[in-house]
Amino acid sequence: MREGTRATVIVTGYFGDRLAQMCQRYGATVTRLDVEWGRAVDPDALRTQLKATPADIVAMVHAETSTGVLNPVQPLAAIAREHGALTIVDAVTSFGGHPLDVGGWGIDAVYSCTQKCLGGPAGLAPVVFGPRALEKRVPCRSFYFDLSLLEDYWLRRKYHHTMSSTLVYALYEALAIIEEEGLAARCARHERNHRALIEALGGLGLSVLPREGERLWTLNAVRVPAGVDEAAVRKHLLDEFNIEIGAGLGPLAGKIWRVGLMGASSSPRLIVLLKGALESALAKQGHLRA
Amino acid sequence: MREGTRATVIVTGYFGDRLAQMCQRYGATVTRLDVEWGRAVDPDALRTQLKATPADIVAMVHAETSTGVLNPVQPLAAIAREHGALTIVDAVTSFGGHPLDVGGWGIDAVYSCTQKCLGGPAGLAPVVFGPRALEKRVPCRSFYFDLSLLEDYWLRRKYHHTMSSTLVYALYEALAIIEEEGLAARCARHERNHRALIEALGGLGLSVLPREGERLWTLNAVRVPAGVDEAAVRKHLLDEFNIEIGAGLGPLAGKIWRVGLMGASSSPRLIVLLKGALESALAKQGHLRA
Repeated sequence: MREGTRATVIVTGYFGDRLAQMCQRYGATVTRLDVEWGRAVDPDALRTQLKATPADIVAMVHAETSTGVLNPVQPLAAIAREHGALTIVDAVTSFGGHPLDVGGWGIDAVYSCTQKCLGGPAGLAPVVFGPRALEKRVPCRSFYFDLSLLEDYWLRRKYHHTMSSTLVYALYEALAIIEEEGLAARCARHERNHRALIEALGGLGLSVLPREGERLWTLNAVRVPAGVDEAAVRKHLLDEFNIEIGAGLGPLAGKIWRVGLMGASSSPRLIVLLKGALESALAKQGHLRA
Repeated sequence: MREGTRATVIVTGYFGDRLAQMCQRYGATVTRLDVEWGRAVDPDALRTQLKATPADIVAMVHAETSTGVLNPVQPLAAIAREHGALTIVDAVTSFGGHPLDVGGWGIDAVYSCTQKCLGGPAGLAPVVFGPRALEKRVPCRSFYFDLSLLEDYWLRRKYHHTMSSTLVYALYEALAIIEEEGLAARCARHERNHRALIEALGGLGLSVLPREGERLWTLNAVRVPAGVDEAAVRKHLLDEFNIEIGAGLGPLAGKIWRVGLMGASSSPRLIVLLKGALESALAKQGHLRA
């Protein structure tokens, strides 16, 4: 990203908006492709946008954690490539929980984290750069984030900074656990438990915001029923059951709860517990389907 | 730091040089005050430099880990202030081991780390900004390092990023250990053990590079005697005694060993062990004073 880079950023929620802001910070000329919060982007909309406004880079969030929506990265990356643009993907909440084939889908740059679907502690950010992205690298202001220096550090063992060995060992163990389970089995487990949650919510008369086929398995955006004090429900869950769920962000504040089922927390046991806890919280407010 | 900021950088070793490079990366016009590696900067040299070339910022390394030299930050900061410049201090290897009075000495910005004299795990960088630095803040490209966003996060609890709670708890414990020992007592211990090391080295006919009064207590630059294979000594220490010491950097490569005595490792027990280990390594090479 350099001064004047033409970046098309798909914005389907809070983290897409942040991505657009980040591109702007680095001097890019940003064209936003805004989509209603709670919906995934339609690949055709990207095609139309790129025809009208050519881009050097298309940036997108795979798993939009603010809305519970999964964007169709595979067709989006293909369209970006057809139009000669590099693809940057935020895989923060998908990596290790949803299928993500960086090479096969032709993605040029991806970043994620260790504390979500990988199930490690927070503090590290795995990154991948493909050959097209590496060819187009530009001088970097930051010493800390300088890709060439980081490459020397990791591949050629040239001193760059002192990193946290504690976190690296913890990530190593988290990856070993994933290896034992198998990545495909892990993704299937995330999907299965997501579906079990949807069913459990249905039993309480609750539904999720995104439509079928656009839903994350890792983060569920549950609609707050009319007349329910959403903050009181979150407090009840935390105080009585030691369960923390997230509040809505931006235009969805007060309208949804965000329920993460990632890594070890994607389990039938926790879904049953959450269902009972939600039942208790809703009953306390006199809101419960007969 | 912005495009065209006039930065005078005191360079007394590898980390001063890195600091100058970092200022350049951010677009500053850098004037270097280069000092022979192994010597501290003379405050008068800074005064002369600032008279000839005014600066907006004076940047310096407190504890130059590549040479074992302590720079006189207190008079340097006073001179910078007299000349209307802000002061940035790299306190990576001094914080928690040498006296450092940020407010009393009038320093405007300081950064350090948790894995050296604080004795915590690596991965966090404590920073301090004084009121004069905060007044002169400029827009920041980086989302990650944006001081205003970090301030909102720490002081007003506004979400910015997911940090490593593991590392924060570990730092909390490391600080509690310092509180129990007392900061002044901790600095005195670092000084005492440094002096004990110098004496132990003397018993083996070894000396350190910096002169008396310019020496770090936390990192000792030991001269490699003529005819000694410095890498073989380091390997012997590691293989036989599980002791790792550093090699020389830049112009000092092959000429010094760098022996850290920081935090818990600043102890008489380890100095005695190191003396014996060095004796063994030097004897193996047939180099030992009668």
